[in-house]
Amino acid sequence: MTRGRQLPGSVMAAVKRQDAGAERPRNLRVLGIDTSLRSTGVGVVDFDGTSMRCVDCRPIKNKPKALLSACLQHLGSELGEYLREYKPDEVALEGIFYFRNARTALLLGHARGVMIAECAKAGLPVYEYAPAKIKQAVTGTGSATKTQIQRMMMRCLNLQELPQEDAGDALAIAITHVHNISGVAALAPEPI
Amino acid sequence: MTRGRQLPGSVMAAVKRQDAGAERPRNLRVLGIDTSLRSTGVGVVDFDGTSMRCVDCRPIKNKPKALLSACLQHLGSELGEYLREYKPDEVALEGIFYFRNARTALLLGHARGVMIAECAKAGLPVYEYAPAKIKQAVTGTGSATKTQIQRMMMRCLNLQELPQEDAGDALAIAITHVHNISGVAALAPEPI
Repeated sequence: MTRGRQLPGSVMAAVKRQDAGAERPRNLRVLGIDTSLRSTGVGVVDFDGTSMRCVDCRPIKNKPKALLSACLQHLGSELGEYLREYKPDEVALEGIFYFRNARTALLLGHARGVMIAECAKAGLPVYEYAPAKIKQAVTGTGSATKTQIQRMMMRCLNLQELPQEDAGDALAIAITHVHNISGVAALAPEPI
Repeated sequence: MTRGRQLPGSVMAAVKRQDAGAERPRNLRVLGIDTSLRSTGVGVVDFDGTSMRCVDCRPIKNKPKALLSACLQHLGSELGEYLREYKPDEVALEGIFYFRNARTALLLGHARGVMIAECAKAGLPVYEYAPAKIKQAVTGTGSATKTQIQRMMMRCLNLQELPQEDAGDALAIAITHVHNISGVAALAPEPI
């Protein structure tokens, strides 16, 4: 589906900085999750210290009229299966820091809780990034649209076609984490 | 720990109404859950059609400084074990309908999501009740304090001692569900 691609200059510089006193594994598989009750995006990116490769990306969907309990159970079981299949080393999520609608935030909280618990059950560290930081990291602007992110993911990871939009967001989250742990960010991320 | 106790008159009338065209099982085990990230209360109540009995109640606690992911994983695994041990037929939760603090609501949403998914995984129907409705059902007033609920649970279920406060709330939620499915409520509850 994809081929490896050289990282931008800033990331390359960071990788070189990391080489000096490297503590992180050079071959890292990151799972990005764009959580939502009805359509959660998941995307796996491999990073070998110099380039990134998309291993898989897809949406996990729930039926529009399914009960909340059925949706949450489905998300958890699908993610569990995905973790067993792709065996990521670390997981990154989109953080929720601004609430336009508390009811929506609560529902999203339900889905996020299930995903985080599933990752923790698999022994994986989980990190979160602010939506604007993700957009900034992958497109250079904090106000990028979903379509801009999809196009950037296709170009950046040499995909043959545009990823589904939630899956594209998931890849963007995974790439943000790779950028961050490569040292582009001033501070090392803290697991949640 | 407890002995069965006759239900109040209103519930008894409802039970008689139910007898006429009974569709619900006469022996029902209800698990009540008072969800919280740091201390979730769980309580199991048996209802034989005329009286209720407390089977167990306890808090599931998380360490104050544990990571969110560790807390959620612990809640899920403890509840899973509890479900296997006590095998309830139905589950009732406190609903969240009013948000004083969206950040708190989101964190509570994480914990609720994990609990609901765990119950759904065990094939159990999950119901929710508004906090004021629970207080009204067990104390007669929608503004009862935690202590009033603890005392009422001790009296109503013939407990030997005051239940821990979150465990007491969980019992109150279970009793509200029993009241509701016995026909005290005008409408049958819908699973979430």
